[in-house]
Amino acid sequence: MKTLNIGMIGYGFMGRTHSNAYSQVNHFFDLEYKPILKAVCARNEERVKAFAEQWGYESYETDWRKLIARDDIDAIDICTPNNLHKEIAIAAAEAGKMILCEKPLARTADEGEEMCQAIEKAGVLNTVWYNYRRVPAVTLAKQLVDDGRLGRIFHYRANFLQDWTISADLPQGGEALWRLDAEAAGSGVTGDLLAHCIDTAVWINGPISSVTAMTETFIKERTHTLTGEVTKVDIDDACSFLARFANGSTAIFEATRYARGHKALNTLEINGEKASLSWDLHDLHRLQVFDHSDESIIRGWHNVHVSDGDQPYMKNWWVPGLQIGYEHTFIHHVADFLAGVAKGESASPTFREAQETQIICDAVLESAKSGQWVNIPS
Amino acid sequence: MKTLNIGMIGYGFMGRTHSNAYSQVNHFFDLEYKPILKAVCARNEERVKAFAEQWGYESYETDWRKLIARDDIDAIDICTPNNLHKEIAIAAAEAGKMILCEKPLARTADEGEEMCQAIEKAGVLNTVWYNYRRVPAVTLAKQLVDDGRLGRIFHYRANFLQDWTISADLPQGGEALWRLDAEAAGSGVTGDLLAHCIDTAVWINGPISSVTAMTETFIKERTHTLTGEVTKVDIDDACSFLARFANGSTAIFEATRYARGHKALNTLEINGEKASLSWDLHDLHRLQVFDHSDESIIRGWHNVHVSDGDQPYMKNWWVPGLQIGYEHTFIHHVADFLAGVAKGESASPTFREAQETQIICDAVLESAKSGQWVNIPS
Amino acid sequence: MKTLNIGMIGYGFMGRTHSNAYSQVNHFFDLEYKPILKAVCARNEERVKAFAEQWGYESYETDWRKLIARDDIDAIDICTPNNLHKEIAIAAAEAGKMILCEKPLARTADEGEEMCQAIEKAGVLNTVWYNYRRVPAVTLAKQLVDDGRLGRIFHYRANFLQDWTISADLPQGGEALWRLDAEAAGSGVTGDLLAHCIDTAVWINGPISSVTAMTETFIKERTHTLTGEVTKVDIDDACSFLARFANGSTAIFEATRYARGHKALNTLEINGEKASLSWDLHDLHRLQVFDHSDESIIRGWHNVHVSDGDQPYMKNWWVPGLQIGYEHTFIHHVADFLAGVAKGESASPTFREAQETQIICDAVLESAKSGQWVNIPS
Amino acid sequence: MKTLNIGMIGYGFMGRTHSNAYSQVNHFFDLEYKPILKAVCARNEERVKAFAEQWGYESYETDWRKLIARDDIDAIDICTPNNLHKEIAIAAAEAGKMILCEKPLARTADEGEEMCQAIEKAGVLNTVWYNYRRVPAVTLAKQLVDDGRLGRIFHYRANFLQDWTISADLPQGGEALWRLDAEAAGSGVTGDLLAHCIDTAVWINGPISSVTAMTETFIKERTHTLTGEVTKVDIDDACSFLARFANGSTAIFEATRYARGHKALNTLEINGEKASLSWDLHDLHRLQVFDHSDESIIRGWHNVHVSDGDQPYMKNWWVPGLQIGYEHTFIHHVADFLAGVAKGESASPTFREAQETQIICDAVLESAKSGQWVNIPS
Repeated sequence: MKTLNIGMIGYGFMGRTHSNAYSQVNHFFDLEYKPILKAVCARNEERVKAFAEQWGYESYETDWRKLIARDDIDAIDICTPNNLHKEIAIAAAEAGKMILCEKPLARTADEGEEMCQAIEKAGVLNTVWYNYRRVPAVTLAKQLVDDGRLGRIFHYRANFLQDWTISADLPQGGEALWRLDAEAAGSGVTGDLLAHCIDTAVWINGPISSVTAMTETFIKERTHTLTGEVTKVDIDDACSFLARFANGSTAIFEATRYARGHKALNTLEINGEKASLSWDLHDLHRLQVFDHSDESIIRGWHNVHVSDGDQPYMKNWWVPGLQIGYEHTFIHHVADFLAGVAKGESASPTFREAQETQIICDAVLESAKSGQWVNIPS
Repeated sequence: MKTLNIGMIGYGFMGRTHSNAYSQVNHFFDLEYKPILKAVCARNEERVKAFAEQWGYESYETDWRKLIARDDIDAIDICTPNNLHKEIAIAAAEAGKMILCEKPLARTADEGEEMCQAIEKAGVLNTVWYNYRRVPAVTLAKQLVDDGRLGRIFHYRANFLQDWTISADLPQGGEALWRLDAEAAGSGVTGDLLAHCIDTAVWINGPISSVTAMTETFIKERTHTLTGEVTKVDIDDACSFLARFANGSTAIFEATRYARGHKALNTLEINGEKASLSWDLHDLHRLQVFDHSDESIIRGWHNVHVSDGDQPYMKNWWVPGLQIGYEHTFIHHVADFLAGVAKGESASPTFREAQETQIICDAVLESAKSGQWVNIPS
Repeated sequence: MKTLNIGMIGYGFMGRTHSNAYSQVNHFFDLEYKPILKAVCARNEERVKAFAEQWGYESYETDWRKLIARDDIDAIDICTPNNLHKEIAIAAAEAGKMILCEKPLARTADEGEEMCQAIEKAGVLNTVWYNYRRVPAVTLAKQLVDDGRLGRIFHYRANFLQDWTISADLPQGGEALWRLDAEAAGSGVTGDLLAHCIDTAVWINGPISSVTAMTETFIKERTHTLTGEVTKVDIDDACSFLARFANGSTAIFEATRYARGHKALNTLEINGEKASLSWDLHDLHRLQVFDHSDESIIRGWHNVHVSDGDQPYMKNWWVPGLQIGYEHTFIHHVADFLAGVAKGESASPTFREAQETQIICDAVLESAKSGQWVNIPS
Repeated sequence: MKTLNIGMIGYGFMGRTHSNAYSQVNHFFDLEYKPILKAVCARNEERVKAFAEQWGYESYETDWRKLIARDDIDAIDICTPNNLHKEIAIAAAEAGKMILCEKPLARTADEGEEMCQAIEKAGVLNTVWYNYRRVPAVTLAKQLVDDGRLGRIFHYRANFLQDWTISADLPQGGEALWRLDAEAAGSGVTGDLLAHCIDTAVWINGPISSVTAMTETFIKERTHTLTGEVTKVDIDDACSFLARFANGSTAIFEATRYARGHKALNTLEINGEKASLSWDLHDLHRLQVFDHSDESIIRGWHNVHVSDGDQPYMKNWWVPGLQIGYEHTFIHHVADFLAGVAKGESASPTFREAQETQIICDAVLESAKSGQWVNIPS
């Protein structure tokens, strides 16, 4: 079996999901390649060392430039806050490393474009961790749409609702709360949550042609973790937008961290002439399918428990009826990435594909400021 | 339009549901007959008079024998406590009246047998108000089974769970609480709740051949409303039983008034070789249908909103998507009864059909006492 | 008991729901007034006569002006297509009749304003049939918000999704399909469906201050029933909009008749600092309640079966656990209207309150045309 | 970190779940011990070697006696068909190895008793893999009951419904289908499925005092994989029983492999005076909780998404809202086992605790034969 030496930068929540994926993938997928946890990198030596021990990394670094410079690293996995994505990705590309970059690709489409050009110039394999594409139920939704089972598409709707920032006592910034700091994150829910919804939507339903958006920041000031000062909150706490897809369908999207009662209500629904589909991350192993061709007296939404061997990825897991969880989406992503390596192909979404989401996020934020519809260049 | 003069005995909860059914049926069903609320009868004159006014009965009586003796009454509707069913029904039959009797038919199979013989001798049209047969979703279930869509049946299960008698402070007996008094009711949950489940089960899945049962009385003594004395509770608070059907399928049934959180969880599920069905009174307008012939990747329970015009009874109501409620089951029953009158036929279940449920209830109670399996004569 | 003589104009779907409400209200509600079905009016004599017989109207008319002129009519109920609302309402007001007008109040806010002024000048009692306010679960939602249980409101979302016009073979116009004819209806889903969502939203969450909207007509031409010609479809098949409420919360709304799988998915959700609520017409007897004050280990959405006597309107119906249906919302409305008559007060929403919805609908349609945010005058 | 050398016997479905658990546990749980995949044992050398490579076992054996004889093995994990449990367990105990045995403990209570005595004599740490105890929602249910939140318990009900043996073409026996062979499995659904339900029930609700049961074998003959002959099927395809618990509550249990539409519908419900709980393996991350102390107007079943850090085991995983899956139950079991090793204590259920389930399974099968109630010795 061939090995692929991984050097991961960052050890936060995503560092754990990725490390787990590398550890698990060959137990369940039959692949030519096996990822080796060669090194993990972060600034805090004590903590990065502990992380390396816990996950079995062979070594650690405290300077990401040194990691990239190492000859024994084949692929760089970027799990840092968003503000570091660009610099690291470009350096990694220039060093000829494959790159697996956490989403969103960047803080802005401009940053993303630089990154795309860098990897295209370097010709390195690359992917962006939009993991929800690889929830089996979501992959199945894509497959059903691609097979033409929905017919003409009329509507798409998606939301990503959370409730973890409602307390005004929550500070912003720092290692734990960089997602509330616009400098580190680029934006609030738009880049963090809507980016997921947009990535999935465009993947399933094709290009978005125009948007009109609204953002809101409910808590205007929060103590900043790094300074201890009460400072203005610059991120969007909530964002919703209307959209038109190139295929003529219309859409609504919404994300917020102020929807009491929803921890991670990431949903999608797509309505076609012949069928409709609906999914919710809170029960990620289920896909709701309405098939108008069912006989009328027993027609109704099928509550599909996506755990059968003929459904995407599921033959690699347990037996029908037994569900997998959140972390498995990352394992699927690594499996596809490794299969791609064997063929010399990047796993979707590539940087260039993920850049489409950046462009739409920028358009959404621009529209929210201007109050105007913004067209997405095709 | 022909008229059918109704004389109703009793004005409790069931008196209201029946009166409503008579009032409503011709607004929604196209029938040859129209029921006329001719008279209502109960011992308390003040209250029966008020009831008559509220529902538009033309007259009232305080002695049911007088009601039966009246020439202007075509049909007697029996809504009294169970201990009066037999005497009234036999008198009504002897007077040549049609009879609509609340369920259960009687307190015991012996009483029921006398009643059956009386109406058969008299040759009068008759029916027993097992209203849940006429929930559109339940009627649809029956239709799907009869059409052979389930194939060989393996399992049936049903329960009827309530929680209204958990408090030890609740008294027993009297007008409001006769259901807790074995003398008035015959039994507890067996006759009150399981009788419904059994009626539906036998209707859908055919004869039951044997049972083994268990009953329990959790609160052993309660104040009796009529005497003010704390006396032994003689009813079954809970009853469950295993059963075998003549068609080879196996079943479990359970009823209780001590299932905290369930007000009226009346359910049925039937598993066949080719399909399965499931229903719950708490959402009575839905039928869950699993059709194994669905393509495997989108196979799942259909959540059918039974509100389309091609589903039982629904073309008489509103438009697809708009649900009806509990009371409509009685309207459907009256509609079928009146259609039967036009053809000289009784509406199901007849006394004789309802007697089958009495026999099974008796067997269940006998088994609960003896701890033995009891065979049901076929 | 005092009587209130009703003269109803129109006998379509709404004519049935209203007639039923008048027939039923005194069976279940204790009121000073009893509505009398005095006359129904429509142009087709044969059919209006049959309708009058079926529902027990004492008489019929074929000219609505004659109906209004009758001295024995106390209240005019307008169930016609929207294009007749204004003329009839103004005439009825001038004749001093109470008015119950189907929703939407009018085709446009200009029409609505004329109507408001007419009834205000005449000083007649009035109401508009936004029946979904009186689904017990929705009324309960209003009560919970008014009691301050949600705290600061962050988000509101509502949609009304149907699928009955997907077929390109469906014609437009005529008696059955006037809702697809802009001349008769004023608009498509905006006036038909979103008007309901807006009425409920403003009632529960207060004034809307601005909107940006998008409409779409998927089937551009349909055969017109009256002419037999294929003509342009002028209504909006789908409409969605973003909104800001005066209380600082943000909202998304969507309606369509092209959402395959949804017959009448009329939903609302409201997210507050302390609690959230969610409701769906497809299971109208349930309210989902998330109460953040619940202890954390058992915190989750309460699936509330709104059938208990302490919940709105339910003490008038059956027993806990037994659901009511769609038609009951109209009965509740009549009950409230009659209670209002006894006190000389109009039942909400009055024409003036319903005019707020007209203004918002106009703003939505204007925004859909201009692509701009439109402010709602406060 | 201390190491614990594992020697696993068997490499089927359970071999995978256990191997995964050993691989994963230290990534997520902070423990003194780390399991080492020292050796896996099975008769087929080619396949056991491949399995060892896939999961990272350091070595393999083809004779379990050799495995037990190895000095470098601390704990024996028994994943064989049930007919080998006894012999292996006794040999392992005599060799002084810790033992982790797949459920059910044995084919019969007699076998189980011998095993219990062997491990008790040897004084070795031991546990039986009743993994569903460690679904976080189930563990939470246990915790809520133990805390007295349900008050007096009235009812327990559980079922385990599958549909994978409906086809008459399915053979019996052999490596893949030993669960259909009574010689290898001991019984059918009783030992395979009901054993799970019973283990959980007794753990949560205390001892069962008596049972009455019914079994059925729907397909009477199947081709035997090993012989190619059509032979009698000796297992129970379906089994249901009524039970009484020592605490006075009543119960129904059912398991089958003929419930079309259910892949692994493993449920439990418990009704207490003050609260009720309900759970279903098909959505294993949810617990339904009804708390009668909730205010009446918002009282309803809480749909609890068991993914918060204060719920059992969940602080070791991701973030609130993100679900785990089936395999994690085994990881939790290993975590608890290793924590026990550090303290010199066995993890529940021990052999002796699992023997209680054997005794009840025997009583169930005896009752199904005799048609009599069978008492469970306390």
